[in-house]
Formats: sequence, structure tokens, C-alpha cells
Amino acid sequence: MTQTKNYICEPSKKTAKFSFMKFSFLSDNTAPVHPQVMQALEKANADFALSYGYDSHTLAAEKKFNEIFDSQVSVFFVNNGTSANVLSLQACILPHQAIVASESAHIHTDECGAPERYLGSKIVAVPHQNGKIQLDGLSNAMIGKGFEHHVQPAVISLTQNTEYGTVYSVNEIAAIGEFARANGCYFHVDGARLSNAAEALNISLNEMLVKTGVDVVSFGGTKNGLMQGEAVVFINQKLAKHFLYQRKQAMQLSSKMRYLSAQWLAFFENDLWLSNARQANAMANKLAVELGKVADVEITRPTQANAVFANIPKGKAEQLMIQFPFYCWDEQANEYRLMCSWNTQNSHIDEFIAALKSL
Amino acid sequence: MTQTKNYICEPSKKTAKFSFMKFSFLSDNTAPVHPQVMQALEKANADFALSYGYDSHTLAAEKKFNEIFDSQVSVFFVNNGTSANVLSLQACILPHQAIVASESAHIHTDECGAPERYLGSKIVAVPHQNGKIQLDGLSNAMIGKGFEHHVQPAVISLTQNTEYGTVYSVNEIAAIGEFARANGCYFHVDGARLSNAAEALNISLNEMLVKTGVDVVSFGGTKNGLMQGEAVVFINQKLAKHFLYQRKQAMQLSSKMRYLSAQWLAFFENDLWLSNARQANAMANKLAVELGKVADVEITRPTQANAVFANIPKGKAEQLMIQFPFYCWDEQANEYRLMCSWNTQNSHIDEFIAALKSL
Amino acid sequence: MTQTKNYICEPSKKTAKFSFMKFSFLSDNTAPVHPQVMQALEKANADFALSYGYDSHTLAAEKKFNEIFDSQVSVFFVNNGTSANVLSLQACILPHQAIVASESAHIHTDECGAPERYLGSKIVAVPHQNGKIQLDGLSNAMIGKGFEHHVQPAVISLTQNTEYGTVYSVNEIAAIGEFARANGCYFHVDGARLSNAAEALNISLNEMLVKTGVDVVSFGGTKNGLMQGEAVVFINQKLAKHFLYQRKQAMQLSSKMRYLSAQWLAFFENDLWLSNARQANAMANKLAVELGKVADVEITRPTQANAVFANIPKGKAEQLMIQFPFYCWDEQANEYRLMCSWNTQNSHIDEFIAALKSL
Amino acid sequence: MTQTKNYICEPSKKTAKFSFMKFSFLSDNTAPVHPQVMQALEKANADFALSYGYDSHTLAAEKKFNEIFDSQVSVFFVNNGTSANVLSLQACILPHQAIVASESAHIHTDECGAPERYLGSKIVAVPHQNGKIQLDGLSNAMIGKGFEHHVQPAVISLTQNTEYGTVYSVNEIAAIGEFARANGCYFHVDGARLSNAAEALNISLNEMLVKTGVDVVSFGGTKNGLMQGEAVVFINQKLAKHFLYQRKQAMQLSSKMRYLSAQWLAFFENDLWLSNARQANAMANKLAVELGKVADVEITRPTQANAVFANIPKGKAEQLMIQFPFYCWDEQANEYRLMCSWNTQNSHIDEFIAALKSL
Repeated sequence: MTQTKNYICEPSKKTAKFSFMKFSFLSDNTAPVHPQVMQALEKANADFALSYGYDSHTLAAEKKFNEIFDSQVSVFFVNNGTSANVLSLQACILPHQAIVASESAHIHTDECGAPERYLGSKIVAVPHQNGKIQLDGLSNAMIGKGFEHHVQPAVISLTQNTEYGTVYSVNEIAAIGEFARANGCYFHVDGARLSNAAEALNISLNEMLVKTGVDVVSFGGTKNGLMQGEAVVFINQKLAKHFLYQRKQAMQLSSKMRYLSAQWLAFFENDLWLSNARQANAMANKLAVELGKVADVEITRPTQANAVFANIPKGKAEQLMIQFPFYCWDEQANEYRLMCSWNTQNSHIDEFIAALKSL
Repeated sequence: MTQTKNYICEPSKKTAKFSFMKFSFLSDNTAPVHPQVMQALEKANADFALSYGYDSHTLAAEKKFNEIFDSQVSVFFVNNGTSANVLSLQACILPHQAIVASESAHIHTDECGAPERYLGSKIVAVPHQNGKIQLDGLSNAMIGKGFEHHVQPAVISLTQNTEYGTVYSVNEIAAIGEFARANGCYFHVDGARLSNAAEALNISLNEMLVKTGVDVVSFGGTKNGLMQGEAVVFINQKLAKHFLYQRKQAMQLSSKMRYLSAQWLAFFENDLWLSNARQANAMANKLAVELGKVADVEITRPTQANAVFANIPKGKAEQLMIQFPFYCWDEQANEYRLMCSWNTQNSHIDEFIAALKSL
Repeated sequence: MTQTKNYICEPSKKTAKFSFMKFSFLSDNTAPVHPQVMQALEKANADFALSYGYDSHTLAAEKKFNEIFDSQVSVFFVNNGTSANVLSLQACILPHQAIVASESAHIHTDECGAPERYLGSKIVAVPHQNGKIQLDGLSNAMIGKGFEHHVQPAVISLTQNTEYGTVYSVNEIAAIGEFARANGCYFHVDGARLSNAAEALNISLNEMLVKTGVDVVSFGGTKNGLMQGEAVVFINQKLAKHFLYQRKQAMQLSSKMRYLSAQWLAFFENDLWLSNARQANAMANKLAVELGKVADVEITRPTQANAVFANIPKGKAEQLMIQFPFYCWDEQANEYRLMCSWNTQNSHIDEFIAALKSL
Repeated sequence: MTQTKNYICEPSKKTAKFSFMKFSFLSDNTAPVHPQVMQALEKANADFALSYGYDSHTLAAEKKFNEIFDSQVSVFFVNNGTSANVLSLQACILPHQAIVASESAHIHTDECGAPERYLGSKIVAVPHQNGKIQLDGLSNAMIGKGFEHHVQPAVISLTQNTEYGTVYSVNEIAAIGEFARANGCYFHVDGARLSNAAEALNISLNEMLVKTGVDVVSFGGTKNGLMQGEAVVFINQKLAKHFLYQRKQAMQLSSKMRYLSAQWLAFFENDLWLSNARQANAMANKLAVELGKVADVEITRPTQANAVFANIPKGKAEQLMIQFPFYCWDEQANEYRLMCSWNTQNSHIDEFIAALKSL
């Protein structure tokens, strides 16, 4: 179980260590809201509207998802990625059933135990390669099936793109989907950065998720230009049967829902989601290329979307972090993560590389 | 346990029954975001900022609460009223301990069981008078203390202003605070509409909440002009010890926290929270006065803040609801609730009363 | 919510107040294990046996229940009444769904919040008459159905015989069963003292529970001569689908299951369950008759099984309790509960009444 | 995460595969109740006794634990090992805090997710050597401390003796105890087979558990001659503050507690717990010696208490299991577990070895 450290923040003091930040590779959620999304919020801010999702923006946004998935889906807006994942999974399992996920999965390492707390279910963690779960690991996880002393695997969750910035191919997803069905499991995708994967693979969400047998997707918008908004998308609509109640009970029903929905409408308008992702992915590619040229630095993972992983000498990394924060991923290995976003510019990369070289 | 019905919405169909709404008395959350709050969001939307609350807006907003409460408090932003209540209460109790609240309390009737689900605790409901809990009811709730077969009351929760639109006086709050301390209980206030109460009583939050012995407050902004934002305010700061983790585990940590914080800064800027509340309260008062003059209509509860309760002949009510939706509170008694907000105008009242009289 | 006090025990000190007890009307669980049950345990105690319920005693006991219910049922043994109730209910609902039960129901008042804690579900409590829920109360509990802000009633639970010692007639049960079906609810019976009811009504469990549409029963043995043993009996066998796992996860799987099963076999052998109940019921009847003749004492509830409720002058009651403990049911009303068991003898009643008269 | 298979039982059919069992090495819980324990139950079965633990047997048993631990402890009886573990751990942590345990720990692999379900907490599993957790694994588990995205380790749990039949030395326990304190963690011991460890180490429980800094112990009796009974022993008595309520809410309060307590009194009478353990350990030792002499068979783990692990050719193992059931521990490695109990006799070993040799 990898546990990353963010040297920038000291939660115990509720203060940030450094206030000299120029720009950030810390996470794509340090970027601002895209201007087109802000405009959509302004536009939605007229007069009274029914609350709790019975407004015209929400109806329109729900329809839009059918279009984007080229399939009849049931979609629900929640407040963040943690809840999108937990509520997606809740729809798939009972508490004695288990979630099978990568040892590096966000739900396993980075949600302060939210899935276990809310679902009462165990996560069975399987080994990964650069973040991707493997079929033999999944097979091992099924050994206890049918024995009452063991939790019963009932949903497989993968992250697209992975916590290591890699992207599952359609074939890889389809193979896991087939395995899931053959083993009586539902299939969930944590798509906190789904836009970046779609852009990287250059395929439709229908190809990537519907045809491969995915049941439910946590579709993230916050990391790709929204203010706040994650969507739980049920491709398998039967699973959505109780979701209205489940969302409310899970403390995730927003009263002024129109402001979540309006963001999603802007997200899909003129493919903003893809153009935002394109910028982030391109900047990561550039950053990887430039970093790779620096002596003492080594790219450690394939750069397939908007994350770059690299070994950087510790002393240099810690100096750089003051102005250009990024994560220490693995302290012992001196492995760092640098994340690009829709707001990352060529000039940021140039300035960062120059600063690195100057050390 | 009162269970209200909203005839306007049909959850099972995820559609609103009527689309002829002119303006709404349904809830104060059908109002838009106040323009000054939108401006603050625009202003906060510049460049990168640390996520998860380590940004300058959040630091500033946290400080602002100390000023507003005229006391050192610990404050945390969450996404909605349900979570503000549940997480406030979590800080006060263990699962075998009980929450004592009014039979009409929102946490008891209107949160789809979120407190029981997330806390594992029972709510011991006591009778009320126009929404207000009474000391003899609290005494009865303490009978089982010390006996392992019974849940153990450990926190008393009141709603200010109440679900019936009434407002506890400072003396009433202080008496409950004293009772709580004498019985080894913490004291929580569900302040989804706290602004309206503060304005109605014309006293400071320090007078109302700090001096009366309240430990923790759910302070609501969404119903009074914010887009989305509720604050958990610990007056008893010891209770906040684990809150950073508890918020994350409860799926309530917003990554782009600056956009919650910026709203709160705008809320308190030039006392927007009070001027918004003043408008809502004044409109409710006008509405009550005008409704009271209509034959066949009877005001059923004291109008002390921004809610008006009235008996209206069923046929008339149902016709009015098409253009001016409001809640049916008690179907058998023909009692309806009409809610005013910062966005309610004199002209709305006039048009509504005219429409009613014309029936 | 009635909360009874047991003056005999001081949990905080983990000591009993009085040690002069001659015999007890406190509860039927203060009686010893019936000798025939002890013999069965001795008999089962030979050599090795497979654990976790795969032994011959368990197989035999499971079959026996089919006979007793004259119907194919799925039966599982658990450790006590609390778990029998909680696990029965778990099989019927999801957390956002609610349990509808009497305000006097044991699951509502006397299980330290176990249902809320384990199920995450709310109990919607309805008024009762001498412990019996009424159809109009059930109707009111259904008002919030279909609205996502309210918990969704999905199972109705009654206690047979009730906490007030009264016994539902077959017609009363059938009417509630019909109501449950008509309202999309399952139907649970808490049968902690089911034997006493069966004996009192002089009908088969098939007549009482199968034909009336009950889905699942918590069948108690501990209060009627067993050492420890409660059975969850699924008349609706579909609900048992996940029960093996659910029992284990709920910390209720006994490894040496044969010792639970052997007790149940003895329970049904030569109708021990009914003869034990007959003695308890007869003694309660005698006690009620004799108490009724005492000046200052008034029987407050119909004596239909093995419980007697009476107003007794407080001073007398408290003196009597020293040697013959019984419960104070309602302190303000001076109402006391006296419970008879299979071990209660004519001489006990005589001695008790004599002692009372001598005060 | 190892998941063992018991080929003897088919849970889905609720039947045992084989009924030709002569005697069992499957688990020590397939042994019967020791005759002295049965006698104690008979003796306790006289007349009325207060329920829920306020009887004289329970008081005596509680005192006895102080003697056995040579320390003032708080002890509570529960129904099985799963609940003893879960409730011990509950006393140590809040839901956002984590339990650190071996990847082979029973709480991690064999309790159908009971800890996650009931506590809402995550188990952080660390590597082991023959079942024993190592200090470097514990250190790695602490990396996320202080970061709100990660669960917060707050209790370390070890199993004595381990799931691999090995026994921690006093020094090993003390070192983990010191680590726990240094890292702000409580220290729990799952002692389902604690008697066997005490006998093997030939030291007092005070030396093994009190002096080494253990806070709370799940002390198992069922596997060593009791019918049903596990004790939660708080060496750190402060942790027991809420336990009476916590036991009741966790569905673990036995009404006829005297029958649990009487077993424990018999357990300690004339050191029955140690003589039973001595027999089990001796038989395992003999079995290991004899198995080690058999061609094709290899002992795979140190035999330090009452478990023997061995590689046995699959064909032979599966034939032997029909009459002498034992567990397949690791299917791929052909590793099997054979468990001895107080009821295992020399003749059993001889017959088993002869049968093996005859194949």
C-alpha cells in the first residue's frame, strides 16, 4: 500500500509550508475553473429554480450524458471523487462482499478509509504493473469464493487513467470486463481523470466503457476544469434502482443542483472536456521529454496521459518544490509525481526545467 | 414523525410535475446565488491554488469566523446541511450514544436516515411546541442513562430557527445548554437558517451560541445566498481534534476548497448574510400579514423568521402551487409551508396574494 | 419510547444491588436451563464433530424446523435475541430503508441501538395499544414513501407476544401481513417469547406465521429453557440467500455449533417448548388472579401469556424486590412487570403473595 | 492475503462432503467440551440467577482473571473469537483510524470482513514471517500518519500463537509493544489460542502480556475445551470505559451469562487451560516428528504449539482427509495444516501416520 506524502501541507497545523508557489504540478486540482465553466454558472444564476435536481439544467445535463456515452445511462451528480467512487460501489455490493482493486488504487490508499467506513466492505488489493491490475492477480482474489469465512469478491474496480498515469487499452479493459462477468462480479471504473484517458486513446466513451462491459463509472470533472462535480454514470441502469435515496443518505444531495449540472453542460459544450485534457496531456508529454534530458533525472513510468513520474535527486526536488510544488510519491526511491492540467502552459514547463537545470 | 410531501417533484420519475413556475415559496434553496457571491467566485478563480483547504481564501475565511463568533472557533467547510449535521454530531458521540432532538428535527425526518447510517447512533425524538424542544421532554429522554440496554443520550441537538419557522430566544437556548451540561451531554445547533434567526433576534452569534454553551454549530449558507456551502463551527474546539480525517472519510473534503471559502468571505462581507436574512424575514412577515387577511386562510404558527405556515383550502392551494410552488406540510390538516428567501420581492407577495384572492 | 429500569442491577458498578434474592420475576431469562436440555448437551458432547454447523446435530435440527413450521424453511442459529432480530431485518432491507415497529418494540428501546448501528437503518416507531401496533399507525408510517428525503419503510416488525405480555390473534397478524404486502414491505416477527404465544393461542406455528404471510421470524429459546439459542427462521427462503456470510460477518457464527443445535433438538423433543410455555403462562395467570385480589394493587394490562403488569404501591414494591426481584416498568405510573418462566412454581406465587400481603 | 479452503464443507449446500470422519485435525474447535467444563455447567444450573452478568458466577470469574493476569484487569465475556477481536479493537480506535496486522491475521482473512463492517476501519496488512509481523513492516505502515488522505494507524494487532502455529517470544512482543507506544498506537493480542502459547513459552500471562505493554487481549477458550466462550481482557482498563454498552450494541450480551462465566471458572480450575494446551502441543509435536519421517512429506513451518504445517502429495492428502479431515492451506504449494487439540490422543497420531504410510 503506497502512501504518498505532500510536503507542501501540514494538516496538523492546517497551514501550507511554503507560500512562494509560482505554479503547481502538485495535482490537476490546483488549477482554477475554466472560464467557460464560470460563464455557465453565471448563466444558470437567474431567478428561482427547483432544488434537488428537478431543474431544467439537470434534465439537460442528464440527457447530454446519453449522447456522450452513446447509450442510455443513468447519471447522478455528487460532490467529489470519493463519494462518486463509494456510491458507485455501493450500488454493486452488500457489505459482506468485497471490492477487488489495485494496491495503488485511490479507493485503497487515498480516501481515508471512506469505502470501508461507508460500505462496511473490505477492499481486496491485488498487485499492479504501473498501476494496472493484472488478470492473474484477479484470479488469486477469487480463491475464497463460496466460503463463509472470507469476504466475497463482487465488484472489480480499475482506475482509468491509473494512479501512475498509465492508460488501460480498450483490449485490457475488455479482458477485465470478461473476467468480471465470468466470476459473477460487477465492473467499476474510477474515472477521476477519464477525460485524459479518452483523449490519450482517442476513442469514444462508448468504445472504452460501454462495449467493454463496464457497469458503473465515476466520471470526474473537477480535475479537468470544473469547480466541483463528479458524476456517477450507470451504464448498467438496473444498479441505479435505489440511487436517489442512496445519494441523499450518503450526504451527497446538493440542494442547488443546477450549479453542478450547469458545469457539466459546459464541460461537454464544444468538447471542452477533450480540449482541456489535450492540453494537460500535451504538457505532460513535453515535461517528460524535457525532464528526460536532464542529467540525474530519470523518467520512471510511461507517460501516457497528464502525469509524469521521475527520479529526481532529493536535494534538488525539495528546492524546486518551494516555487513549483509537486508530490513525493515514494520517499525511499526518490520518485516524484508531476501533474499537468488544462491550465499548464508551455512557459510553465520551460521555467520549471530552467530552474531545475540551474540547481 | 412528520413527513412532508412536495407535490411538485416526482422522484420516481425524476421529473417535476409542473413547469409553469413563476417564482417559488417552496424553499429558500430555490433562490439563486447572490450576485456578490458570484463575484467572489470569479475573483477567486485566478491561477493555481493549493487544494484541500491550504489556500489563502480558506485561511482568510477561517479567521473570519473567529471574528463573527467573537471567539476562537475551529471551522470546516462541507458540502451541504446533511453532512454538516452528521459530522457535527459525530464529533460529539460514539455509536452507542444517542442524539436527542425534536420529533420535527430535520435530522430525524428529512435526511433519509443519514445520521443513523453514518453514525450508527439512534436519535431519541422528543415532543416539541411549534418545533421547539421542551425541558420536560429532554428529562424523559434521560431515563435510560446508565442502563446498558438503552442507548445513552450524549448530545442534544436543536434547530435554530426551527422547522416551524420559530426562533429560540437566548434564554431558551441557555436553559437547554444548562440542561445538557447537567446531564453530561454536548450541545449542537442545526443552523441551516441561522442567519435568519440572528437577524430576527437582532443579537450576535456570540450572544446566541457562545454564551449559551453551544459546543458545535452547523452554519448554513446555501439557503441564504450561497451556491453551496455549510460550515461546521466548533465553539468547543476540543471536539475538532479528529475532524480533518473525519471530513475526508465522510466524503466531504472538497479538493478545490477555495471556491467554498470564497463564498463564505463574501457572505460576511458587509454583513451580506444579515441583509439577505433581513429581506427574507421581512417578506415572510409581509406574506403572513397578507395571508392572514384572506378569508378561508389561517396562519397556524408564529411567523418569527422566513417561514409562513397556513391552513389553505386544499383546492386553492393545489391550483396556486402550479405557478407558485410551496410545500404541503400536513396533508390531513391542510397545513402548508411558504418559504421566503433573499430573492423574494414585494411584487412576488403581491402577485401571489392576488392570485389567491382571484380563486 | 419507554425505557424501563432494573433497580436490581447497577451497571456502572457491575454489581447487583441485592443479594437476598429467593426467586425472580425479573425476567424469564433468570430461570435455569431445563434439565432435558442439559442432558442433550451432555449427549452431544462425544468425540470430534465438524464445526460451523456442518455436524449431524445441526442438520437434524434444521430439518426439525421444517416439521415444526410444517413448511420448508431456512433456519440459522445465532447467539441471542438481539442478533436474531438484527440479522432477520438485515435480510429484508438496505440501509436507506426503514423498519416500522411499535414504540414499545424491544428493537426500538432495549437493544442499545444495535439495529441502527449494524443496519444503518432507521426505525420508524408507531403507537401501540398494550404493545400491539395498529393499522392506522402503519398507514401514517408510509406517508414518506417515494420521497428521497425520507427513509423508505420496507419491513414491518411485530413482537409476538408483545413487550406488554399481550398476544396478537391470528387475524391481527394476517391483517398486518396483508398491509405489509400491499405496501411493498416484508414482515418480521420478533418471537423472543414465541412459545408462550403459541401455547396461549393453542395453534400451530404454521397457522400463526406461515399462513399469515410472515417472511422471517426470530424464534427465541433462551427465555423458555435453553441455555443460549435463538433461531432465525426464513419462511420466505429467498431472503436467506446471503445469510451464511451475513451471520459470519455479524460475529454470530458459533464454531461449536452442535451445542446450539442440540439445544433446539431437545426444545422440540416431546414438545418441551410447549410444556415449558404452558407452565409459565399458567403461573402468570395465577399470579394475575392473586395479585388482583390484593388491595392497593391493580392489574394494568391483559394477562395473555407469561407477563403480569400491575400498579403496586411504590414502597411495597421496593421492599418486595429485595427477595423477589421484578422490573419497574414505568416509574411515574408505579407500573411494574412480573415475569413467569418454566421454572416458576405454585409455591413461588404463594410465597410472593403472602409476602406482599404481610407488608 | 491467504485464503484457505476447507474441502470438507460445502457452504453453498450447507452439507459436509464426507461423513466418514474418524477424528479430526481440521481445527481445535472440532474437539468436544472438556468433561470438567460440562460438570461446571451442570453445577451452575441451579435455580434462578440474575441475568446479563450480575450473577455470582460472573463476579467470581471476573475476579479470577485478575489472579491469572496477576494484575487488575477488566474482563467481559462474549460469544466467539470474531466478536472478541472486533470489540477489543473497537475500544482502541475511531473509524478513520486503522488496525495494523499481519497479512495472515485472522481478522484480515477469515472473519468475512467483520472488522471493516462493524468498525468502519481499514486493516493495514503488513508482511510476515511464518505469521509473525516484523518491525520494518510496521514502520512502513506508519508513513501516512498525519496526512488526512490516509487512514491513521492507531492499534497494532498480533496473533499469539500465530495462524502459522508459531509463537512470539516475550522479547518479540515487548519490541512490538515499544514500537506501538512510540508511534501512538494501542497494542492488541488476538489470543484465540493463547493457552497454547502460554504453555509453549512456559511463562505467565503477566510476563507475556502485561509486562510487554499489551492493552487488550482476546482470550479464547472455545478452541481449548470450552463450549463457547471468549473473553475480552483489558489490561489497560481505561479502554473499557464504554464496553458494557459496546458489548450490548454489538449483539454480544448473553442473557444467561452464568453459563459463560462458569466455563471460565472451570477453565482456570486446577490449571485445566494449561493441561489442555499441554496435551494439544505435545500431540502436535509428536505429529510433526512422525510426519517428518514420512517420505514425500515435508514440515514447512516451525512447530511451536498445536499446529503442524506440511507439504503432502495432493493425492495422498485428499484420500486421508476423508477419514481424518484437515485443511488445505495453500493449494498451489500443496501445503496443509493439521491441528491438534486437548482431545487429540497418541492413538490418533499413530492411526493417522499408519494410514498415510499405507497409501
